[in-house]
Amino acid sequence: MTETWTDAERELANRMRGADIISVRQFTAPDLGTLLQIVERFETVTSPVLQGKVLGALFFEPSTRTRLSFESAMVRLGGGCIGFADAGISSAAKGESLPDTIRIVESYCDIIVIRHPREGAGRAAADAAEKPVINGGDGSNQHPTQTLLDLYTIRRRMGTVAGLRVGFVGDLKYGRAAHSLIEALAMLGNELVLVSPESLRLPPRQREDLDALGGVWSETPDLASVVPGLDVLYVTRIQRERFGDPLDYERVKDVYQVDEATIAPSRDGLIVMHPLPRVLEIHPSVDASPKAAYFEQAANGVTVRKTLLSLLLGVTP
Amino acid sequence: MTETWTDAERELANRMRGADIISVRQFTAPDLGTLLQIVERFETVTSPVLQGKVLGALFFEPSTRTRLSFESAMVRLGGGCIGFADAGISSAAKGESLPDTIRIVESYCDIIVIRHPREGAGRAAADAAEKPVINGGDGSNQHPTQTLLDLYTIRRRMGTVAGLRVGFVGDLKYGRAAHSLIEALAMLGNELVLVSPESLRLPPRQREDLDALGGVWSETPDLASVVPGLDVLYVTRIQRERFGDPLDYERVKDVYQVDEATIAPSRDGLIVMHPLPRVLEIHPSVDASPKAAYFEQAANGVTVRKTLLSLLLGVTP
Amino acid sequence: MTETWTDAERELANRMRGADIISVRQFTAPDLGTLLQIVERFETVTSPVLQGKVLGALFFEPSTRTRLSFESAMVRLGGGCIGFADAGISSAAKGESLPDTIRIVESYCDIIVIRHPREGAGRAAADAAEKPVINGGDGSNQHPTQTLLDLYTIRRRMGTVAGLRVGFVGDLKYGRAAHSLIEALAMLGNELVLVSPESLRLPPRQREDLDALGGVWSETPDLASVVPGLDVLYVTRIQRERFGDPLDYERVKDVYQVDEATIAPSRDGLIVMHPLPRVLEIHPSVDASPKAAYFEQAANGVTVRKTLLSLLLGVTP
Repeated sequence: MTETWTDAERELANRMRGADIISVRQFTAPDLGTLLQIVERFETVTSPVLQGKVLGALFFEPSTRTRLSFESAMVRLGGGCIGFADAGISSAAKGESLPDTIRIVESYCDIIVIRHPREGAGRAAADAAEKPVINGGDGSNQHPTQTLLDLYTIRRRMGTVAGLRVGFVGDLKYGRAAHSLIEALAMLGNELVLVSPESLRLPPRQREDLDALGGVWSETPDLASVVPGLDVLYVTRIQRERFGDPLDYERVKDVYQVDEATIAPSRDGLIVMHPLPRVLEIHPSVDASPKAAYFEQAANGVTVRKTLLSLLLGVTP
Repeated sequence: MTETWTDAERELANRMRGADIISVRQFTAPDLGTLLQIVERFETVTSPVLQGKVLGALFFEPSTRTRLSFESAMVRLGGGCIGFADAGISSAAKGESLPDTIRIVESYCDIIVIRHPREGAGRAAADAAEKPVINGGDGSNQHPTQTLLDLYTIRRRMGTVAGLRVGFVGDLKYGRAAHSLIEALAMLGNELVLVSPESLRLPPRQREDLDALGGVWSETPDLASVVPGLDVLYVTRIQRERFGDPLDYERVKDVYQVDEATIAPSRDGLIVMHPLPRVLEIHPSVDASPKAAYFEQAANGVTVRKTLLSLLLGVTP
Repeated sequence: MTETWTDAERELANRMRGADIISVRQFTAPDLGTLLQIVERFETVTSPVLQGKVLGALFFEPSTRTRLSFESAMVRLGGGCIGFADAGISSAAKGESLPDTIRIVESYCDIIVIRHPREGAGRAAADAAEKPVINGGDGSNQHPTQTLLDLYTIRRRMGTVAGLRVGFVGDLKYGRAAHSLIEALAMLGNELVLVSPESLRLPPRQREDLDALGGVWSETPDLASVVPGLDVLYVTRIQRERFGDPLDYERVKDVYQVDEATIAPSRDGLIVMHPLPRVLEIHPSVDASPKAAYFEQAANGVTVRKTLLSLLLGVTP
């Protein structure tokens, strides 16, 4: 694997040794491209390069997918895991501050992944720790490994992460996965089509960010009209828990349900993505379609996390 | 270990590569015999044959014994584990369907064990997954690895799993462990003596199944009268949570309490079994008796699970 | 590592093979000294000497620090872990007795660590098990690995665990960590200065034990007056949950808050310790001081546990 790395890959790997992954914004567009190339190299890595290394997985709120995916990545590479799946069994319950928990746990492990309900917790953890910290999702803020696995899935399927027309549909107001990916895709030079009900439109701050990045984007509540022109359709879940008034939720929850008919008029090469879990947004009949890429996203997540764990721990050429 | 396998063992191992274990009914009587022979071979296997392999342990309801036993089996053979111990920290809590959870988790691991409160969940999981799935108990339905460790315990102690007279005592109405073992023992040609209060007799469906298998069996509420003739006494717990009316539970809970006096008139070679946990059904004074086999059952469970994990993953000669 | 062990170290290692660790009282003063020397040897051990070994970590009450530290120690040495983080997912919830749980779990693993809210549970577990058991804290009784890591931290910093003047401040009535360390330090020939509010003084039984050991000790409610003479200041948390009446807690909770000003008049070589988690007892501004040793305690805990796991499992020269 090591002989053929490009200079850009080696240079990025050097910079990432010992670093933290807090937000996808910490990467430039060229770095993102290089990083995705490195991820591809890890597709075939099965040797126990992380033997003896320990991941501290601190999940202050439950997240099966992210936690199991990180643990799988670590175990696949020969490493071990310690941690908790839930704040109830953490010492935060005894009033311990986050920096204290981090400083203690880092003395037990080599690298930390933290999931926390509070915005900014990823950054705070990284500031407290001397060892590498990966933000596994901090409230409605950032979830960079999700964004990277989304980008990697697009790259594997489409051969590129630039010059595509990508539609986002569903909750664009609260959806963290969508915000972060929208920004990254704009930065990489893709055209964005944002589809949502009026009450769940992309918030002003994100729209300004998009414009500042020189992003090409448009908005519409009408999914059917845009499907034929898309390369990628990214569906997000409308979450009941985001709504103060249950009636507001009932009003929008079923607005977009992607089924076979929805994607029939699309280009052949369209891919349908979803950060999962899904509830009603994508009908199970779509699962068998070659257009469905959402279960691949989960699988790609392991490869992305194997890559990041290895790079941050400096176990690369 | 590999050189001396019989043709039948090799052939069964071939068939089990990549298969699921959902119910003990999927095995014929000869296959069960062959499988128990293979389990015996695994008594001495300590090499890390499953290095790099990952078990996904999905416990939608808690089960210390089954979970720890599977994890021990995996770790003993050099593999790793990911998963959850409790549905509260799974994404089912977010409304995800079981097939979705399974399809995602199988992309993180090589083999899945699932414990679920709903009957049929083991089968549903296996249908959703391409990788091997082991049913670790689905409601009051099946728990095949429990049945196999029970059979293996009988085989180790008695030298055979045929031609024995086996008594079952306690809750034969709701007891999943008992139902499944009763059926398997009938299939293998043993005589069954069923001891229970009137309200906890074996249900009609199971009795019909027994008859259809040509099973030789009898029923009585009187334990003392049958003990002298038994080779095996299998005791089950009467579970409070099965009774709608607490009074019904109080009426039967202490009917059978096996103590030293109970088994004094038995044959010397009698073994007393219990799926555990026990509460009052077997007095601790029995623990020191050579007739007590219930802690051995737990130990044998690890060997059985080592065998199944290896066979399904195809790591055998 | 093995060539240079002293006779006393070899002899102690032999005695500890297969033993239990229930209380620090099981060690003589010379044995404690020898044990701390062995711990120092394990600072540099990174080889997977415990490969194939399994730790059963039974936490009947949550304890992030102790659990993660043991798991880290095991994984660092190449071993694996099974267990539970919380009694809710144990079979104790089904009415199983502690000895039954222990006998079953020991058939899944090679060594057990148990944390339990009930005093005496560590001893009871060791009595039930044939395999080594480590008491990871039993109610307000003993937590020997905490005491050992405290002693080891003092030894690393001060070069000795004898002839020092050690102050304890805070809750000396309920604080388990303090009780056990106070006793060990007295036994090793240190002078103790006990600082607490009247309502949280060291209980009569502990004072008698101190006297019986020939301990040199004094008591005062005034921290400022004793700081200048101390080599070690051990701070403990005053725990809300120990007080029946919230007002009693409010009255004492803020009596001692160690900050930079508190330790300014101390000797240069003073170290400040705390079993953690801390809440308000030590101001974060102390963290950067070379006198702060509390995060080192956590790190030393892994080394101490690596040592004990290895010694009890007999994996030493």
